[in-house]
Amino acid sequence: MKTIFSPRHAGHAGNVELMTGKIMPAFEMPSRAEFIRARAEEVGLGPILPPDAFDLDTARRVHDPAYVDFMPTVWERWTAAGFDGTALPYTWPTRGLRGDVVPDAIEAQLGYYSFDAGAGFVEGTWDAIRSSHDVALTAASLVSGGERAAFALCRPPGHHAGRAFMGGYCYLNNASIAAQWLLDHGAGKVSILDVDYHHGNGTQEIFYGRGDVQVLNLHGDPKVEYPYFLGHADERGEGEGEGFNHNYPLPWGTDWDGWGAALVDACLKLVAYGPDVVVVSLGVDTFERDPISKFKLVTEDYPKIGRRIEALGLPTLFVMEGGYAVEEIGVNAVGVLTGFEEGNT
Amino acid sequence: MKTIFSPRHAGHAGNVELMTGKIMPAFEMPSRAEFIRARAEEVGLGPILPPDAFDLDTARRVHDPAYVDFMPTVWERWTAAGFDGTALPYTWPTRGLRGDVVPDAIEAQLGYYSFDAGAGFVEGTWDAIRSSHDVALTAASLVSGGERAAFALCRPPGHHAGRAFMGGYCYLNNASIAAQWLLDHGAGKVSILDVDYHHGNGTQEIFYGRGDVQVLNLHGDPKVEYPYFLGHADERGEGEGEGFNHNYPLPWGTDWDGWGAALVDACLKLVAYGPDVVVVSLGVDTFERDPISKFKLVTEDYPKIGRRIEALGLPTLFVMEGGYAVEEIGVNAVGVLTGFEEGNT
Ligand SMILES: [Zn+2]
Ligand SMILES: [Zn+2]
Repeated sequence: MKTIFSPRHAGHAGNVELMTGKIMPAFEMPSRAEFIRARAEEVGLGPILPPDAFDLDTARRVHDPAYVDFMPTVWERWTAAGFDGTALPYTWPTRGLRGDVVPDAIEAQLGYYSFDAGAGFVEGTWDAIRSSHDVALTAASLVSGGERAAFALCRPPGHHAGRAFMGGYCYLNNASIAAQWLLDHGAGKVSILDVDYHHGNGTQEIFYGRGDVQVLNLHGDPKVEYPYFLGHADERGEGEGEGFNHNYPLPWGTDWDGWGAALVDACLKLVAYGPDVVVVSLGVDTFERDPISKFKLVTEDYPKIGRRIEALGLPTLFVMEGGYAVEEIGVNAVGVLTGFEEGNT
Repeated sequence: MKTIFSPRHAGHAGNVELMTGKIMPAFEMPSRAEFIRARAEEVGLGPILPPDAFDLDTARRVHDPAYVDFMPTVWERWTAAGFDGTALPYTWPTRGLRGDVVPDAIEAQLGYYSFDAGAGFVEGTWDAIRSSHDVALTAASLVSGGERAAFALCRPPGHHAGRAFMGGYCYLNNASIAAQWLLDHGAGKVSILDVDYHHGNGTQEIFYGRGDVQVLNLHGDPKVEYPYFLGHADERGEGEGEGFNHNYPLPWGTDWDGWGAALVDACLKLVAYGPDVVVVSLGVDTFERDPISKFKLVTEDYPKIGRRIEALGLPTLFVMEGGYAVEEIGVNAVGVLTGFEEGNT
């Protein structure tokens, strides 16, 4: 399996985030991607290739075009306004407030286009976002071109980014943009299977009213787990998307028994939907020693995920999302991919 | 004019807030109230009296009862969850996310019930909120009982607190609760005149669909000024409240010429409405040297505000809101009140 990787992710570094009353270095840091790249090389997963350049037209089809146009302007406007450090919002248009008027001030636009203070900008952030987007589409083009599978080693991740909001370390929704690109290049239907510990609230929100993309999410129960305000079992899609969104909120402490059973059920729903391609939002923060998560998967479980997905028999695009136990992230993420390759023999 | 004041405000101290990427000591600090109290004493404004105790039934009529019940639980649950420092949220249910499911986790409930990370809790916060509420209702009962005017020296302030959200240093909306109490004790109609630099987004949201409370707001234009997501001129009320909400968004740099003209217009609309009582949300962060605001009112302008309001000839309840240039806050806030008293001779 080919891996697409860009060193430009590394410019997104040194940013901070707000978490439970503290400003702290973001858990989403450059070493994550480097550990995964190194592991892919170590086990000989396949060639590691740089991305091609893609325009943002597809991104503008899944995101609000104004949101896409906003992001490249953030850092310059933040510094021009006299602020220093990581560009972060500090107030948000929650229910009862207006979401139909975009304010002018940069700090207000950051709030308008986000749901937390966990997707900050530093000088290199936009270039990293752009490279991560290109990584996803380059890998998508490999799958579209006939490869059985490809690995988009994206950083920053994307699944928390919605149509017009960032948050949770995510800016452009790489998996959603890739799914749209696949639809635009021959696929009739795409399933996005999100196995990250956290609910892919952005992905769900983007496709909630659409029937051409099925979204399946396995994640920590949003009653107790970030990102909290989406991901319940009763969210089934609406309009043309009715019945094509499937959430599996799982309790803290879930191990392979519970998690694997949910994966089997999700795979059954995926098969019933009959997509032409599968996009996997690959997070490995389900790991027992992940610093911000509370599932109990062990390293030996990750190849099982890959084998299960391979058994679907479909072209498969893996898009990297979360996972924060940096020492093990490479072993676990690449474990999914080698599990897939072992099945695909 | 009698001033109602409780020393219990002082337990709300040492809390921090998030502002443009930094966690910093909240600008809303105990010395604010003490400067105002000292100045009222110095100029002999009148007796300074402690509040009576009131139950929270009226608060539950303007706020979501679940929101009112949530606040006393915050500090104990925050510490029980293992968090330290100021209890602050870190993710919010913005548009596209669900506002109909209250999460279980304390850090998520803080986000569910807020629009920023500027209304934190420390150990003494709830007791201060409760005392501020009692201060407002005690002063309201004086006006209801026949006093021409009374001053509720509230801390924390209230006008950013909406039906089910806190933010901007505000928790219970003291002015709104007082207005409701006045309606429940003989007034047929109440006008709330908010002269704080910042838009009283909470007050507007609470009464937006009601015809028995007129809300008038003079404030920094929300396109460029906190709290950003409400306060535009086209917000006129809805349903039974249609036509009873009036916003005067004003540009940075506004001095008495522009501000006083807007006040005159607001007073004309107030007279046309014909309320039985006026509640003034009294913020003095319109001052030229306020550290977080950008209007240019000078100390000599504040008595003019009081005289203008007195000329309405109506029973008047002053409820303290913002103002952060602590050395001058007492002079300016009490200046409004002595201006009122000078007119009332
Ligand atoms: Zn995650
Ligand atoms: Zn203010």
